[in-house]
Amino acid sequence: MLTARLEATATGAQFASTSEHEDLPYAHFKISDSEDLSDASITGGASDVLRTPSTPTYGSPEDVGKAIEELREALPGKNRIQTNPDTLQAHGSSPNSYHPSFAHSVVVMAHSTEDVVKVVNISRKYRIPIVVSGGATSLEGHFSGFPSGSICIDMSAMNHILEINESDGDLRCQSGAKWEDINDTLKEKGIPLFFPLDPGPGATIGGMIGTGCSGTNAVRYGTAKAEWFLNVTVVLPSGKVIKTRRRARKSSAGFDTTKLFIGAEGTLGIVTEATLRLAPRVPTKVAMAQFPNVEKAVSAVQQILNTPYGPHIQCVELLDDHMMAAINAAGMVDAPYPVQDTLFFKLQGSPESIRETSNVVQEIVQSHGSTRFEFAATEEEADEMWQNRKYASQRQFSWRDIALFSTISTHPGAKCWTTDVCVPVSRLPQLVYETKEDLAKAGLKSTIVGHVGDGNFHALILFKDEEELQSVSAAVHRLVHRAIEMDGTCTGEHGVGVGKTEYLVDELGEDTVELMKTIKNAIDPLNLFNPGKVCDFCS
Amino acid sequence: MLTARLEATATGAQFASTSEHEDLPYAHFKISDSEDLSDASITGGASDVLRTPSTPTYGSPEDVGKAIEELREALPGKNRIQTNPDTLQAHGSSPNSYHPSFAHSVVVMAHSTEDVVKVVNISRKYRIPIVVSGGATSLEGHFSGFPSGSICIDMSAMNHILEINESDGDLRCQSGAKWEDINDTLKEKGIPLFFPLDPGPGATIGGMIGTGCSGTNAVRYGTAKAEWFLNVTVVLPSGKVIKTRRRARKSSAGFDTTKLFIGAEGTLGIVTEATLRLAPRVPTKVAMAQFPNVEKAVSAVQQILNTPYGPHIQCVELLDDHMMAAINAAGMVDAPYPVQDTLFFKLQGSPESIRETSNVVQEIVQSHGSTRFEFAATEEEADEMWQNRKYASQRQFSWRDIALFSTISTHPGAKCWTTDVCVPVSRLPQLVYETKEDLAKAGLKSTIVGHVGDGNFHALILFKDEEELQSVSAAVHRLVHRAIEMDGTCTGEHGVGVGKTEYLVDELGEDTVELMKTIKNAIDPLNLFNPGKVCDFCS
Repeated sequence: MLTARLEATATGAQFASTSEHEDLPYAHFKISDSEDLSDASITGGASDVLRTPSTPTYGSPEDVGKAIEELREALPGKNRIQTNPDTLQAHGSSPNSYHPSFAHSVVVMAHSTEDVVKVVNISRKYRIPIVVSGGATSLEGHFSGFPSGSICIDMSAMNHILEINESDGDLRCQSGAKWEDINDTLKEKGIPLFFPLDPGPGATIGGMIGTGCSGTNAVRYGTAKAEWFLNVTVVLPSGKVIKTRRRARKSSAGFDTTKLFIGAEGTLGIVTEATLRLAPRVPTKVAMAQFPNVEKAVSAVQQILNTPYGPHIQCVELLDDHMMAAINAAGMVDAPYPVQDTLFFKLQGSPESIRETSNVVQEIVQSHGSTRFEFAATEEEADEMWQNRKYASQRQFSWRDIALFSTISTHPGAKCWTTDVCVPVSRLPQLVYETKEDLAKAGLKSTIVGHVGDGNFHALILFKDEEELQSVSAAVHRLVHRAIEMDGTCTGEHGVGVGKTEYLVDELGEDTVELMKTIKNAIDPLNLFNPGKVCDFCS
Repeated sequence: MLTARLEATATGAQFASTSEHEDLPYAHFKISDSEDLSDASITGGASDVLRTPSTPTYGSPEDVGKAIEELREALPGKNRIQTNPDTLQAHGSSPNSYHPSFAHSVVVMAHSTEDVVKVVNISRKYRIPIVVSGGATSLEGHFSGFPSGSICIDMSAMNHILEINESDGDLRCQSGAKWEDINDTLKEKGIPLFFPLDPGPGATIGGMIGTGCSGTNAVRYGTAKAEWFLNVTVVLPSGKVIKTRRRARKSSAGFDTTKLFIGAEGTLGIVTEATLRLAPRVPTKVAMAQFPNVEKAVSAVQQILNTPYGPHIQCVELLDDHMMAAINAAGMVDAPYPVQDTLFFKLQGSPESIRETSNVVQEIVQSHGSTRFEFAATEEEADEMWQNRKYASQRQFSWRDIALFSTISTHPGAKCWTTDVCVPVSRLPQLVYETKEDLAKAGLKSTIVGHVGDGNFHALILFKDEEELQSVSAAVHRLVHRAIEMDGTCTGEHGVGVGKTEYLVDELGEDTVELMKTIKNAIDPLNLFNPGKVCDFCS
């Protein structure tokens, strides 16, 4: 594991013996003096990202041991409590990111909301931080362990669909269910509905709620922060279980507590079930248009989305010239594409609506200098064309595929750092232009894939060694500041995790972050739920 | 003013002299003994709804006087500080509802965010509750004054559009701006975009945020809890001003603090500006279908919405037989409609999409027993047909119009209590059936108008005197419990105010309401922001 941005020794987490706090009321906990952490289960070195300067007192290694014993008693059965070092390491780190990470002390396989309550109560008794693992697709280190020890709840066995109400267009499932499995099930059952949030393959409902995800469909259907989650069942840090809403599509009955947990990255509660709103499946077709530069591509998109045909645009994805070269190099297409900035569209509607929309798109892209427009006339052509866009999703890359960036990196062992930012759509061309120039100046090989309809893009930056990784990290830092200066955000859909914590104050201002801390401290005063993620709630 | 559900004397609010708390830190405030309230500015008698059992200490009448003096100094200028009894009374009550209400102690005309900060700081210094007034269209008593005295901030002068970004499809305005004015301005400027939330006429952006509103367009565009508010500027109870987001369409950067204020009814912060996302204006046409009963009408809607043509349904509104009779009696149509349960549809899309959708709608409604289907072929026909639906909005009624319910009430001075609930769409027919039966049994004249695509309906119940008002109040209580038992909510879009506070625990459970209290107490520990609304945060 690469350990860029890590320091040599762990600091910050503080211990207290269990006997002192076992019967304390559920309230703010006193801070004790700092102690040495050398015995704690740290695998990746310490990190200023995971350090909590005025941290609450967490359980000692002895407490961790007692908690594990108690977990074994509370959740008997084969493989429910795992302490194999490889498992602890794997659950605390991600194959997709290079942020500092720590192994957990124990991994617990949850089978029910009641299991989660038991774990939360034990975690609170011994003051052991608790981190939830879902589909493990996070790119920002959301499920890293905590330096002084942490319990990881693995939700992968809680993947059941519990109820489908076709006529009401909703579905209830456990939070470990994957969005692709849900859509496959609906299709198999002949139900003409689907769940439109489509982040990376393998993402679970719980993780999608935690990061406030979106995906390619967001331009038409919005994000996780829209109204796709009608109700969530949540285990709070107090061990209490709440449902945030009933099953009606709309409600104005009090604070929107559902939204409190969407984007909170497991720092306020653990979502165990969710009621999802579904949308009718609408036929789609795919088109592509190529442009002399990103500016012309983006201005075409802006104009298209503001026409009455805008609602027929389900997705509009930008692949830059580097990515088109990679697709050509991968030999996925019969005839290589011209190496140009390219838009892939997914149009939705009846055949007649799609035909009309396609005409409007063609006319507008041509008026913005598009050099080539293709419309997939058949299902097969559409599948093949969209496959090219999907190829550009970083989560589709295997290490073998990465080597296929032959035009931009000839190093066979190249790795890829993925980051995302989002800006008002009109600022996107300038941001892309400046970023590409900056990356080239830094000697880094990169490509850009964007949900351009929302002003959101992913930069995929290659590196081959520790030195280049440092250079990537610095370039990402500059990219984020550039986005914030353009009235944008440090992350459009990947979340904060540990990777973007340092940008929150710059983006939102001290008082907005202070408000987040006020909420966090009120709901989780012991800072046990995923500490160190989103922001340093104890500073 | 009618004062049903009010008791004879005020109780509950408690005083402390200013000198005791003037320099206290911003933190939980001690509770003093109860004092007599007979001197306070109470106009409507006391109410158990506005009483806060273990209430914080609020300013005495003397403190209220000092606060008003300080407000005059802080906001000099003509008519900025109003204490005329009629004004105080009018700002504390609503022409549209019959909940208990209290006059304010003072009304302040705000012109800027800075003005609001000044008022909030003075309110906090003297412990005087603060209530915001927007378009005054609330149906649940949101802007009632507080028994021990309250400052009302009138936002009606903060109604400016500050910035329109056509290419990004967003707009920034002050929170006193009305949604209809915003849409008129966009139209006048030739901008092909609109803001799709359409609650009652006269509603302001601030009020729409506060109640988590929706309207007829919600079936296609969702509610205020979707993603139409990109960023809000909020004055917190601490006097701090925050912006919740930047201008990017999407962000996963931390907690969704925008949503914290949507539906919070001014209890957590005062919204002074908002950045709205706009949608392209899409051509529409209107159709209507009549049915032998509500069950058949609703099952038709469910089927239509689940087809690929569902996204072309912008609105689908149910008017029951009583309302159709009222429309006939109003003489608004050349030939009277058959007196049957009726759906009005607004279809959107290109002419060809609308034609296709209309065919699908016609086919489905006929298969569900529709006895009559009409499609407005021309703009004029569409306008006339939709006008009939709009007539059914209670806010369109003048007292003269109400008398036109000639088939259901011959009393010339009849008044109308409006309430709303929302249930899963499949439960709607049973709810409507049982409600109509219950109202008839109680001898009450009523009609039902529903946003049936969302399972949300308004019951408009007529009464002519205090005795009938008591009977209406009891019937609304039964209606709400019926909705909650059907997995629904006590309010789909009108909000809680004082009218629905008693149902929150039944609907959401004690622990969910407790979570709301935790948040409220953390952000507004002195309970100065609109106390008594949403729920009794001090109990």
